[in-house]
Amino acid sequence: MKRPIAILGGTGPAGMGLALRWARAGETVIIGSRSVERAQEAAAGIRARVGATSSVAGEENAAACAASDLLVLTVPFEGQVALLKQLKPAFKPGSILIDATVPLASSVGGRASRTLGVWQGSAAQQAAELVPQGVTVVAAFQNCSADALNGDDPVECDVLVCSDDPNAMRQVIELAAKIPGVRAIDGGKLENARIVERITALLIGLNIRHKGHSGIRITGLPPSSYHGSE
Amino acid sequence: MKRPIAILGGTGPAGMGLALRWARAGETVIIGSRSVERAQEAAAGIRARVGATSSVAGEENAAACAASDLLVLTVPFEGQVALLKQLKPAFKPGSILIDATVPLASSVGGRASRTLGVWQGSAAQQAAELVPQGVTVVAAFQNCSADALNGDDPVECDVLVCSDDPNAMRQVIELAAKIPGVRAIDGGKLENARIVERITALLIGLNIRHKGHSGIRITGLPPSSYHGSE
Repeated sequence: MKRPIAILGGTGPAGMGLALRWARAGETVIIGSRSVERAQEAAAGIRARVGATSSVAGEENAAACAASDLLVLTVPFEGQVALLKQLKPAFKPGSILIDATVPLASSVGGRASRTLGVWQGSAAQQAAELVPQGVTVVAAFQNCSADALNGDDPVECDVLVCSDDPNAMRQVIELAAKIPGVRAIDGGKLENARIVERITALLIGLNIRHKGHSGIRITGLPPSSYHGSE
Repeated sequence: MKRPIAILGGTGPAGMGLALRWARAGETVIIGSRSVERAQEAAAGIRARVGATSSVAGEENAAACAASDLLVLTVPFEGQVALLKQLKPAFKPGSILIDATVPLASSVGGRASRTLGVWQGSAAQQAAELVPQGVTVVAAFQNCSADALNGDDPVECDVLVCSDDPNAMRQVIELAAKIPGVRAIDGGKLENARIVERITALLIGLNIRHKGHSGIRITGLPPSSYHGSE
């Protein structure tokens, strides 16, 4: 059986978009949610779009977490800590948790074009403090427009993958490169999520000001630095 | 006579690169430096590259500042406050100061892939606090690779222009769009320099890790948002 990807808090726009893209790429996806009904409804929606050969299931978050060692966290910042605390007993040792959380000021009623300061430096580093030992956090996908992910065109965005673990980094780069249009780039240590997360707030500001669905591309690196294709 | 562009602290790689590009675009450029000899030597170097029709002079920083109302600041972060304090009596009322400063941790012996926290939020906002009333600060050009600017190929980088003054914003967008390859984008209020400045540290980290001269492109905005061409 294929190694499934569990998308925790996956019924929001970002989680649904990633689920859609990976299901299309032939991956087995489990959508996690607080409500198993909502998760199954979301999974059915993806299956209907991708077709009968797709493998997408819905589970309660803890069950989704326990069913996979390749996890993606796509919750709003205000839900991140509570969910990670709740999932603590569910993690398999050796799991990779891909954190896409952005500490937008909208989490506390402010603007989505601004960020909050996180004590640990970034939402991803906060996640790393909350997962059990043996679980590796990788920061990625914060800058991809959910609108773009949920569409049918290639996603015009590079994904900066940040992690302190080279093996986990490699696996997430491979996963990101499966999304048409995405180029995955080794973005260095997890602490660099401090900057990558903030870029999302900048892009949201641009979207509001210019009425777009913006993303970023990194130019000027050698071809071997880019994984996937525009 | 054409309105000159004065590049203060302009003998470093960023200042030289901007001077070269604007001289090539037919602009009148004054390179400012602590040392008038160094400024004149730098100006002669640009003239030699661009050709006899170019108009590039060298002046001491205060004289360069007094000679123009379109100023660009390209000093390392550790020199920003002292230079702005020194220039205070030299500014013409109504001047635009384009700040390209990035608070890299290398300013205090740390890594250039990390930033310092600036009390005002960004180096550009610090500049805004230090200039006399009537001088408008616009943040721009932080993300352009100095290597790319000093080369002959189009500069593969979008310039996010941040300012609280729509008129100054418009003028700087026009100026940025004169650099081949650069697309200038309205990046919103000056406070957004907090994020744009940090992107430079991320790009420097990518340059070290991947051996490149990286830049950024913003994707997904309507064509009218981009000024200049790739």
